[in-house]
Amino acid sequence: MSAASTGLRPSGRTADQLRDLKLEPGFARHAEGSCLIRMGVTEVLCTASVEGRVPPFMRGKGEGWVTAEYGMLPRATHKRGEREAARGKQSGRTQEIQRLIGRSLRAVTDRAAMGEMTITLDCDVLTADGGTRCAAITGAWVALHLAFQHLMRNNIIARNPMVDQVAAVSCGIHNGVPVLDLDYAEDSAAHTDGNFVLTGRGGIVEIQATAEGAPFTDSELTGLISLARAGTDTLFAAQREAVGL
Amino acid sequence: MSAASTGLRPSGRTADQLRDLKLEPGFARHAEGSCLIRMGVTEVLCTASVEGRVPPFMRGKGEGWVTAEYGMLPRATHKRGEREAARGKQSGRTQEIQRLIGRSLRAVTDRAAMGEMTITLDCDVLTADGGTRCAAITGAWVALHLAFQHLMRNNIIARNPMVDQVAAVSCGIHNGVPVLDLDYAEDSAAHTDGNFVLTGRGGIVEIQATAEGAPFTDSELTGLISLARAGTDTLFAAQREAVGL
Amino acid sequence: MSAASTGLRPSGRTADQLRDLKLEPGFARHAEGSCLIRMGVTEVLCTASVEGRVPPFMRGKGEGWVTAEYGMLPRATHKRGEREAARGKQSGRTQEIQRLIGRSLRAVTDRAAMGEMTITLDCDVLTADGGTRCAAITGAWVALHLAFQHLMRNNIIARNPMVDQVAAVSCGIHNGVPVLDLDYAEDSAAHTDGNFVLTGRGGIVEIQATAEGAPFTDSELTGLISLARAGTDTLFAAQREAVGL
Amino acid sequence: MSAASTGLRPSGRTADQLRDLKLEPGFARHAEGSCLIRMGVTEVLCTASVEGRVPPFMRGKGEGWVTAEYGMLPRATHKRGEREAARGKQSGRTQEIQRLIGRSLRAVTDRAAMGEMTITLDCDVLTADGGTRCAAITGAWVALHLAFQHLMRNNIIARNPMVDQVAAVSCGIHNGVPVLDLDYAEDSAAHTDGNFVLTGRGGIVEIQATAEGAPFTDSELTGLISLARAGTDTLFAAQREAVGL
Amino acid sequence: MSAASTGLRPSGRTADQLRDLKLEPGFARHAEGSCLIRMGVTEVLCTASVEGRVPPFMRGKGEGWVTAEYGMLPRATHKRGEREAARGKQSGRTQEIQRLIGRSLRAVTDRAAMGEMTITLDCDVLTADGGTRCAAITGAWVALHLAFQHLMRNNIIARNPMVDQVAAVSCGIHNGVPVLDLDYAEDSAAHTDGNFVLTGRGGIVEIQATAEGAPFTDSELTGLISLARAGTDTLFAAQREAVGL
Amino acid sequence: MSAASTGLRPSGRTADQLRDLKLEPGFARHAEGSCLIRMGVTEVLCTASVEGRVPPFMRGKGEGWVTAEYGMLPRATHKRGEREAARGKQSGRTQEIQRLIGRSLRAVTDRAAMGEMTITLDCDVLTADGGTRCAAITGAWVALHLAFQHLMRNNIIARNPMVDQVAAVSCGIHNGVPVLDLDYAEDSAAHTDGNFVLTGRGGIVEIQATAEGAPFTDSELTGLISLARAGTDTLFAAQREAVGL
Repeated sequence: MSAASTGLRPSGRTADQLRDLKLEPGFARHAEGSCLIRMGVTEVLCTASVEGRVPPFMRGKGEGWVTAEYGMLPRATHKRGEREAARGKQSGRTQEIQRLIGRSLRAVTDRAAMGEMTITLDCDVLTADGGTRCAAITGAWVALHLAFQHLMRNNIIARNPMVDQVAAVSCGIHNGVPVLDLDYAEDSAAHTDGNFVLTGRGGIVEIQATAEGAPFTDSELTGLISLARAGTDTLFAAQREAVGL
Repeated sequence: MSAASTGLRPSGRTADQLRDLKLEPGFARHAEGSCLIRMGVTEVLCTASVEGRVPPFMRGKGEGWVTAEYGMLPRATHKRGEREAARGKQSGRTQEIQRLIGRSLRAVTDRAAMGEMTITLDCDVLTADGGTRCAAITGAWVALHLAFQHLMRNNIIARNPMVDQVAAVSCGIHNGVPVLDLDYAEDSAAHTDGNFVLTGRGGIVEIQATAEGAPFTDSELTGLISLARAGTDTLFAAQREAVGL
Repeated sequence: MSAASTGLRPSGRTADQLRDLKLEPGFARHAEGSCLIRMGVTEVLCTASVEGRVPPFMRGKGEGWVTAEYGMLPRATHKRGEREAARGKQSGRTQEIQRLIGRSLRAVTDRAAMGEMTITLDCDVLTADGGTRCAAITGAWVALHLAFQHLMRNNIIARNPMVDQVAAVSCGIHNGVPVLDLDYAEDSAAHTDGNFVLTGRGGIVEIQATAEGAPFTDSELTGLISLARAGTDTLFAAQREAVGL
Repeated sequence: MSAASTGLRPSGRTADQLRDLKLEPGFARHAEGSCLIRMGVTEVLCTASVEGRVPPFMRGKGEGWVTAEYGMLPRATHKRGEREAARGKQSGRTQEIQRLIGRSLRAVTDRAAMGEMTITLDCDVLTADGGTRCAAITGAWVALHLAFQHLMRNNIIARNPMVDQVAAVSCGIHNGVPVLDLDYAEDSAAHTDGNFVLTGRGGIVEIQATAEGAPFTDSELTGLISLARAGTDTLFAAQREAVGL
Repeated sequence: MSAASTGLRPSGRTADQLRDLKLEPGFARHAEGSCLIRMGVTEVLCTASVEGRVPPFMRGKGEGWVTAEYGMLPRATHKRGEREAARGKQSGRTQEIQRLIGRSLRAVTDRAAMGEMTITLDCDVLTADGGTRCAAITGAWVALHLAFQHLMRNNIIARNPMVDQVAAVSCGIHNGVPVLDLDYAEDSAAHTDGNFVLTGRGGIVEIQATAEGAPFTDSELTGLISLARAGTDTLFAAQREAVGL
Repeated sequence: MSAASTGLRPSGRTADQLRDLKLEPGFARHAEGSCLIRMGVTEVLCTASVEGRVPPFMRGKGEGWVTAEYGMLPRATHKRGEREAARGKQSGRTQEIQRLIGRSLRAVTDRAAMGEMTITLDCDVLTADGGTRCAAITGAWVALHLAFQHLMRNNIIARNPMVDQVAAVSCGIHNGVPVLDLDYAEDSAAHTDGNFVLTGRGGIVEIQATAEGAPFTDSELTGLISLARAGTDTLFAAQREAVGL
């Protein structure tokens, strides 16, 4: 990465540099597992809540369910947004994000090992500066892992149903250069933008890559995936530290 | 207050003792004014958002408007509650609380001095342990004051439209003894429960006192008001410190 | 009360004078208990409907439940209001009022004596001229009492679960003078306004007192409570006459 | 009509006999026009509210608009029904009825003579015992006529835009006999049931006739129309008396 | 019918002429019964879906239930209409139509012969050019009949519960002349407009006739019914051919 | 591709074989552009509706807007689904799909060349058998292109704003083999599943690839993209034929 191109990021970061990362496990006092994740200014509170039953479509299978909800405080954003509870419905964006978070966590959970219980991951954005859905996935993994540890300590489950780590990061092409972990300023200006949900063992759980303007090429996609791998390796290390692995 | 009676509080506090109080002004990065208020385990994030227009019923009067919205993260509570945005409507309790917060702050604001703008106070409960509506009022005053300071610094208004302080505290009769600042354990067990919204100069903005079981007497009401005055005096001092007065 | 001050009421009433009061028990043909209450021009139809089961959160406790709903015909008001059923949701005001009515009636009901049944009090305003929530509480007590009498006559319950009377009246400070039973003209102009829900034996069930402009003082509050007591004594007598006590 | 067949009506009425009819014009204190109509136990409060503008699809045509809303108090019925405002939407039945009422009144109104204003007819059922939609149409005509008189008295319109009378009555085939003005007991048992909206000058505004079980014949339809004509003649006389014609 | 009067129809049809009619049974690949009906440009896809249980109010009676839902694709119309799913509620018109379709089909079904099952008739308008509700009824009969045949072939029911045919057609008075099967251009201009739901054996299931402007007379009603009978005879023949009777 | 592996597809197709494809341009009679697309049993009706204004957030920019809505007839599926209009809200899946369709079409449209107009693409699934969102994108391109041709013929725009073709196809790993254009049977069983939105000139507009069970690898992703390219080449040829290019 040349000095010239890295100089283009508004934050002064190099193209492959994550924002400052901080994970605070146990932030929420009542939840079975929780984590406050900060990536730069972006701040998401993730909680894991255990309920001893599964939704109707899962009953009688002897398996558990992991689901997610996502929200944003009205003034998480630069300009106040309308409160979804007041508006009476969740936006398409909100629903799309919470479906993604749920799928991502289920991909690394052995649901047969959970028994018939539901864990709901609430990811609420306190401050938004780009990358909130990725931060939510990364933080939710910590919350879910802590909830499983809590259930093991209480002898409700025998072993931790987590079979791998999962974390997510956004990458995009900004000023013609592939860059890691877009903040809001970059996200607004990027021509191509992707969210990469990857696992600790090197697999891909989900890729969503979108051209905002001109289409992108296969090789650009390959470049973004490489950046994302490097970024998630850092996230995996932070997750392990947060849960004491 | 006898030692015997004070010994009855689950938290070990004396009857006239507030919980540990902490105000963090400026917690929210994007808001014109904000305050994270903690009273014991209860934790409410209050933000003030300025918008340069008023709702239709206020137009053309040359006055401003101050309104409030209240929410609770799903896992703010001991047991996860349903997300109001997912349910598609706000509960009666939520609407009652946000109307109370709005009225309380308007009572100490000279709206003519604001000009035609709206300030929305968002009070979102991160952790709930009783007294969230009172904490929201106390914290919202700080957020609103900071937003007015911000508007003065930017020469949008000439003087601070805040004409007094306002803070709120709950009091109730627990095990036959009037006690200050109920936490969740006390609130659930109290026979009478009231919220007292008082001003820095000694006035009453709003009183809501309810018998949960047997009715209460005039003298019990008088006792609760006295406790509340002592409690809000402490809150007023903390508010002044938070905004630098 | 001086002639000068009483002369200030738009209706010509003295400061401590209720509006003309009329209770018509049994107005609704199908309900187990009902009462049409008129206080001046304000007119509220209260019905009590019995259902032989309780809501989920009350099941298996062997106790009954008393709840209330409140509505206003679109042209109950001077200017037609939007129909809440057409708008698709109840306003915050409506929800706040119906919660108050329910709490007030539960405060004087021995729910263990009801057995597992629900009584719903529907309070629908036919004509509004201030004080509708107070009239609703006073009338709902009559409807509820009649429903209990109906259940006793049909040997469904052995004794009347009503342990006391409850009635409500508004008081406020109008032109600097505390006055009883505000009508719409006074309510719009009052600086302080309160609803007082009191019992036949002299207890307080609920007080909601709000400063619309300047805060009020402890002694003003005391004055309003005194007025309210005198007013509810008249209401209690009318209630007893309506139910034949 | 033989004595044998008339003896079959649960109410003891003859086949061509209306229920007791009472129209109380001016019942609602605030509305520009109103009428409480009672047909036997059925009781509907009809109000006419004037607003000085028309809905968007009517703007700029120089014509007025007449529309209707229909509601039922929760305990208007033998068994309490859910409140539509609480349920968050109006039933298909409610919407069907209010559309019928609006069409019926528009059919006898010269909307060009109104100028650009909207009159909303609110028809709220206080007690239901069959025939509420027909009673609503008959009563709404009175309310609308009174509102037009009010507008003439205030020199807002020069002449009454009402060009004819309109009234409605139900007829049906009960125990094989065509009968007039079905009450709830008959309505539940009738094999064929129709609502006939007729005008003072002998025209048909709307007919809705439905076989609940076996289809009906052309001659049965003719018989029902004859009964309806006789019934509405009585209703027209009562309407004229109510508005002073 | 004189040449002069037939010349008045925009489509060039004679007064008693149906539009081109086409029924395509089995159009929908997954439904137990289906029919795409085209009447001129109007095109409605009708499907019958079987579910092995009845709604709560029908349980334990040993009878089946037949119900209908109606919808219109947003661009079925000349000008795009709002999608009801996006708007969050069905219009009054939609609800009125689907109630009519359900009643019409239940009128010719022996629900005791169905056993406890529900058949839902979905009638979705692909292209609208007037008469969609009538086409839906006519097409839904075919879909329902095919579903019953399917159930008989699978030995779920022993005999076809269909006791008669039912079809519907609109008639109206256009330019003073009674005409059959109004298309959109005629429907918009007609002074009187009716929907006639008739049975194969000559009975009337439902008549809805409405004066859009001036009221109509008994003899005009008789004329419209005669036209409708002739029209439905053609529809009945097409239905029989579609189901192989 | 070995015979063994291709033998595994339930439909008997080879791994790189699309389903039978049929595009019917102009299917909807009223829309400015339309296309009925069939891919095997899957059938989606796409219409393009032109409106001469843009949504508020686009006003004054001199650019057009392209948006999409997606729906499914209740019995498009093997088992009847609830009608979203009856349920009162669109599912998260529906919203996610319609956002994807809108983005995909905007990616190949020069919105400055449109002027201030909105084109809404309605994609309604008549029959579903997997791949409905992809079929919707492919068919919507035809509808949009025809609408632009319509606008050019009417001299509303000078040149066609379409700058490229866009089409979509799903690919997945079924029984360990990457296969093209999953039908419902394959989709339910696939371990990895992706939607690939590609352009005529070889670019990528959007990739969404998800592991349903075990994560997938970079090389598997590469394999899926290759299959998708081959598939969309066939789709592009069919699109050109449909619009006469």
